Amino acid sequence: MKKLMNEKTQFVADMLKGIKIMDNSVDVISDNVIVRSKLKTKGVALVSGGGSGHEPAHAGFVADGMLDAAVCGEVFTSPTPDKILDAIKHVATEEGVLLIIKNYAGDVMNFEMAQEMAEMEGISCQSVIVRDDISIDNEQDRRGVAGTVLVHKYAGYLSDNGYNLADIKEKVEAFIEKVKTIGMAIYPCLVPTTGQYGFDLEDDQMEIGIGIHGERGIYQEKIEPIPGIIKRLMNELEKEISEKSLIVMINGMGATPDSELAIVANYFNEYVNEKGFDIKKYFVGNYMTALDMQGFSITLVPYDQEYLDAFNAPTVSKYFK
Amino acid sequence: MKKLMNEKTQFVADMLKGIKIMDNSVDVISDNVIVRSKLKTKGVALVSGGGSGHEPAHAGFVADGMLDAAVCGEVFTSPTPDKILDAIKHVATEEGVLLIIKNYAGDVMNFEMAQEMAEMEGISCQSVIVRDDISIDNEQDRRGVAGTVLVHKYAGYLSDNGYNLADIKEKVEAFIEKVKTIGMAIYPCLVPTTGQYGFDLEDDQMEIGIGIHGERGIYQEKIEPIPGIIKRLMNELEKEISEKSLIVMINGMGATPDSELAIVANYFNEYVNEKGFDIKKYFVGNYMTALDMQGFSITLVPYDQEYLDAFNAPTVSKYFK
Repeated sequence: MKKLMNEKTQFVADMLKGIKIMDNSVDVISDNVIVRSKLKTKGVALVSGGGSGHEPAHAGFVADGMLDAAVCGEVFTSPTPDKILDAIKHVATEEGVLLIIKNYAGDVMNFEMAQEMAEMEGISCQSVIVRDDISIDNEQDRRGVAGTVLVHKYAGYLSDNGYNLADIKEKVEAFIEKVKTIGMAIYPCLVPTTGQYGFDLEDDQMEIGIGIHGERGIYQEKIEPIPGIIKRLMNELEKEISEKSLIVMINGMGATPDSELAIVANYFNEYVNEKGFDIKKYFVGNYMTALDMQGFSITLVPYDQEYLDAFNAPTVSKYFK
Repeated sequence: MKKLMNEKTQFVADMLKGIKIMDNSVDVISDNVIVRSKLKTKGVALVSGGGSGHEPAHAGFVADGMLDAAVCGEVFTSPTPDKILDAIKHVATEEGVLLIIKNYAGDVMNFEMAQEMAEMEGISCQSVIVRDDISIDNEQDRRGVAGTVLVHKYAGYLSDNGYNLADIKEKVEAFIEKVKTIGMAIYPCLVPTTGQYGFDLEDDQMEIGIGIHGERGIYQEKIEPIPGIIKRLMNELEKEISEKSLIVMINGMGATPDSELAIVANYFNEYVNEKGFDIKKYFVGNYMTALDMQGFSITLVPYDQEYLDAFNAPTVSKYFK
């Protein structure tokens, strides 16, 4: 296996130390927890995380305007409840803590256990579960993917604007209902801890409906020029969203070059122009990745001026751009 | 060949249209030229470019505080003199234009021809040639690589601070003498126009001394844990730079995940701490890439307060971070 790393058992710990070197506005308080150096003293604190391998998520979004802490498990592995509790206790304010959880069995179990432990220690703690991946039919089983980053930003905006914990939870849950994502890949990721590729894919095939943990997609298909791929993904998204006025995130899966993400943006824009959509804002880049997977996802949010204000509000995260 | 694209002949044109969709502060004035939407009316204008495939360079650095125009040739192919001249004429101010050229035969020839054509049309035009790649022994043959992005930033700072064309050229040339880079790769890039990989590399090998056009490195070696790779690269850089106080850029080659760049940063920092270096600033990310190559380069600049001020000065480019 070829990776730019040292010991595989130290992959996440080494990465977090590197993030601290790159960004002096955060601190690493354990091998798995990254927090703002200047803690928030008022407003609801926001904690997210999950397995590592999705960089810049989640550590890159620990910043004024977004998260207060990220709990970074081993690669593609949920962090343990005690680490999540460490993060909650470190950043908690009197207004309480909201946990933003991606819908994976391990994450939900461990974050909810940490939530209970925090409540037993007298910390007011609530959680929301992101389920934006429409490639899964059953809505309760839908995974949390790139749309989670927009949830971080929206929740950060609400916290900065003085909403209380119950109101933030309610507004964020209404938002989560509206965020829809679908992804695809042309090359799998190589997982540093196992030395194995997430899946095998023939030289002329693509995966549609991938998750972000190196797992197979829902189906394989012969690769097409990008306009055909966009049409295929949008056909699925349009079953979920009837609004014509949208906010869009085109998210690279980690090893997709900027040139190809720009080409995706170009043909996406051609498609929506032809279909009469009105795009209020584009996010294009790497937000929620799967190590060195090549591919992208499209996230759609129906336009709402409050959402747009939230996304346009300042954050010091250099990854939310 | 698997790429997220449509027609290979339209790769660069499609990419530039996509960049415009992502960033409303630039305009595309031809298939190959990207300029600021709000042109500078005073101060020396800065034009750079070369072959495409190095994104976010150069188009991503067309922004207040950095470049006024980027001329984006086909993938790994120098733009023609007439395109470069179009860019010069579009952004020229009364104070003149500085061309920032990477040292490749085609780029030097075509940019210098455009410079002559501009001068014949009465535009005051000068050029500088970046040669930061120390993997080539002969200094005159050294290629321009990641350090070029720091040249863009320094020149932009000088222009914004009112230096005239002759002074900027002199100061930038002195800066270029001090910027030193060396790179490595563990996987080659797949070139969309040819469908070929830049080189073949065995499953346990790495390339040391790579350029940014998919070409082989200076030598191949069995891959090592990252501390050994850093020592190997720093041994070369320390032959060139004797100062202990440095500014550092760790540049991803396009498909290197953020997690691995952070791990590189961590072990680089361990190395320099042990050796008694004092690092004044780190840049870590994708600045000057080679499509989907996996690897990184290290660029060192001896500390100088003016350089640090220049790098810390604001720019609206979201890629200079």
